[in-house]
Amino acid sequence: MALIVQKYGGTSVGSVERINAVVDKILATRAQGHDLVVVVSAMSGETDRLLKLAKSFTDPPNPRELDVILTTGEQVTIGLLSIALEARGCPARSYTGGQVRILTDSAFNKARILEIDSDRVRVDLSLNRVVVVAGFQGVDAQGNITTLGRGGSDTTAVALAAALKADECQIYTDVDGVYTTDPRIVPQARRLDRICFEEMLEMASLGSKVLQIRSVEFASKYNVPLRVLSSFVEGPGTLIAPEDQTMEQVLISGIAFSRDEAKLTMLGVPDKPGIASQILGEVADANIEVDMIIQNIGADGLTDFTFTVHRNDYKKALDLLRNKAVVLGIREVRGDNRIAKISVVGLGMRSHAGVASIMFKALANEGINIQMISTSEIKISVVVDEKYLELGVRALHEAFHLDEPPVKQ
Amino acid sequence: MALIVQKYGGTSVGSVERINAVVDKILATRAQGHDLVVVVSAMSGETDRLLKLAKSFTDPPNPRELDVILTTGEQVTIGLLSIALEARGCPARSYTGGQVRILTDSAFNKARILEIDSDRVRVDLSLNRVVVVAGFQGVDAQGNITTLGRGGSDTTAVALAAALKADECQIYTDVDGVYTTDPRIVPQARRLDRICFEEMLEMASLGSKVLQIRSVEFASKYNVPLRVLSSFVEGPGTLIAPEDQTMEQVLISGIAFSRDEAKLTMLGVPDKPGIASQILGEVADANIEVDMIIQNIGADGLTDFTFTVHRNDYKKALDLLRNKAVVLGIREVRGDNRIAKISVVGLGMRSHAGVASIMFKALANEGINIQMISTSEIKISVVVDEKYLELGVRALHEAFHLDEPPVKQ
Repeated sequence: MALIVQKYGGTSVGSVERINAVVDKILATRAQGHDLVVVVSAMSGETDRLLKLAKSFTDPPNPRELDVILTTGEQVTIGLLSIALEARGCPARSYTGGQVRILTDSAFNKARILEIDSDRVRVDLSLNRVVVVAGFQGVDAQGNITTLGRGGSDTTAVALAAALKADECQIYTDVDGVYTTDPRIVPQARRLDRICFEEMLEMASLGSKVLQIRSVEFASKYNVPLRVLSSFVEGPGTLIAPEDQTMEQVLISGIAFSRDEAKLTMLGVPDKPGIASQILGEVADANIEVDMIIQNIGADGLTDFTFTVHRNDYKKALDLLRNKAVVLGIREVRGDNRIAKISVVGLGMRSHAGVASIMFKALANEGINIQMISTSEIKISVVVDEKYLELGVRALHEAFHLDEPPVKQ
Repeated sequence: MALIVQKYGGTSVGSVERINAVVDKILATRAQGHDLVVVVSAMSGETDRLLKLAKSFTDPPNPRELDVILTTGEQVTIGLLSIALEARGCPARSYTGGQVRILTDSAFNKARILEIDSDRVRVDLSLNRVVVVAGFQGVDAQGNITTLGRGGSDTTAVALAAALKADECQIYTDVDGVYTTDPRIVPQARRLDRICFEEMLEMASLGSKVLQIRSVEFASKYNVPLRVLSSFVEGPGTLIAPEDQTMEQVLISGIAFSRDEAKLTMLGVPDKPGIASQILGEVADANIEVDMIIQNIGADGLTDFTFTVHRNDYKKALDLLRNKAVVLGIREVRGDNRIAKISVVGLGMRSHAGVASIMFKALANEGINIQMISTSEIKISVVVDEKYLELGVRALHEAFHLDEPPVKQ
């Protein structure tokens, strides 16, 4: 008998029929003898409806009051699911974030969980009840209602699993697991049975939007085994867990990519200490987040300096740098917002130097020019012209044999 | 400077435009230098929508979980109104029933308020904030969310006014006050400037559905002056307050009526002690509420016994009594569900014996036969054939000169 935390997203609880399907899954899990805590999101569309209503008065609305409104979405779902469970003979009890209580800081709209009091939940579990908890929400030390920001229900589930020392945290979503890459681009993409936290973080932050990054970080920090499953299709999903020394280690786990990139290049920058931080400081002050940064060794006391930003920030960043060019001694600022980033991710990379050469060769074979390269311990990213995105992803998926079941290294 | 509690019902906050109109009223009240606590209902239609959703799983749904769902209606409104106030430069802060906290018993769906902790509200008022409180809801000693039952927002407002020792509790609704009778029946019906608690209770329970009876009882118990006003039309409304010795006392304040009555008559009942309680006991056991009860002095050891019930319970009561007739020794049970009740209500009645004779004469002049009569200290009710309802109300309104402004007695 295990203690399992399950999380069902907005689509999974989007209608009376869907909620009844969730009840089926819960009853099946209980039939296996497990204790269950269930975290739910608002019914799909509900959060957007409430947000629109709030914004019809002013935009942005008062952040404290916005959270009062938005949290009602999940509150309705916990009540409905508990009613549905009780109607099917399964004892259930719902809790809002404040009732649990999930203590957060007071950063309305994007609060962070500080502490979870799991006493009430434990009592209910001991009484054989399914405990149904509203995701995405908490309460600060003064009793104000807070939200964790979009996608925060995943974080609620993982944090509850950590607090309860649950055996597994299962995230039910509309995909049946984590894939080697996006199957819409590579039909041969394969579901991974298992992936480690570090790989998942690189995959998630690079654009595989299966899980909230924060929830993966949380799971990693507290060592909570996470499993991604489909609400609609039966299957084992993908287990996201600590690196397992005994598991068959593959070279590359997946190919991530992002279309939302733009790059900015400063030519003829004085090659002196502090210049990079000065340029990036201006960018940071304008609340623009920078992703990749590259600086080449210069000649004649000058250097070229390139970084990438989210495409939405491109125009703002370009204007800013052109305005500051003279002050910063930059000769010329060039930009390109028709680029894409492709990354190969895998723990196996640590011990295999050959990954980069396989990657670059595969891209070269397709005539794809690499504009930028950036590496981390378990990831290599390249920036290419956006028209090569699909071709590049497919070439790499094939080059690393990701369509084939993993073999021992 | 006074402390005023205002309550706005579902129609008054039914749309973005309506909420902005409520903001206008609040700002006008503040401009007069008053401190303000505002109680709001769910936007019109919202409670029904949520109830329907909950009942789509099972009917009746689990009562605890139903309250979790229903309370979100008011929670959305408090957030929206606070956002709207802040957007117009007026500091505001919202509270759910649990946040205030409004402590109730644990009778889900129909909880009673036990205690109100007004500390947080007082702090906010001292900081010049408008405090916006969700009506209809509270929290029990275990932290479970409860509701006060339909119309409970009036009760929340009056209870808060009592706890805060407010100078006045203003109930904004879709009528501009309490009338001498229903203007749809008597176009000459006149808005009352003032009515005392006792009269209002008789008027409300007799069918003038302006205010929840419970809120009037509460106001009477704690001596909170209540004012009924329109959200849509400017005007002083009607003040419901303790009996004022100095006020011009009128004979009759109004004519109330009800179409929802049915009567049951038991003929040839053994005239022995305990027989009435035996019959009514059976009725009460079947959860049927009895309104008027009449028993005539009998002859030959037999008596006739009549009582009225809500028309919805008529069939059930008739079947019950016919089944029990032999056991109870009743010769015959007769019923009539085509009756109506008309009542004249007024404090002045206490000292004027002539009211009954004016009343009966007015009805007789119109050829209206009186089937039953029942009296209380400040009320005389008669049961007549339902076809005479409008005629009877009009005749009594004229006989007591209710269309004319009050004169000293």
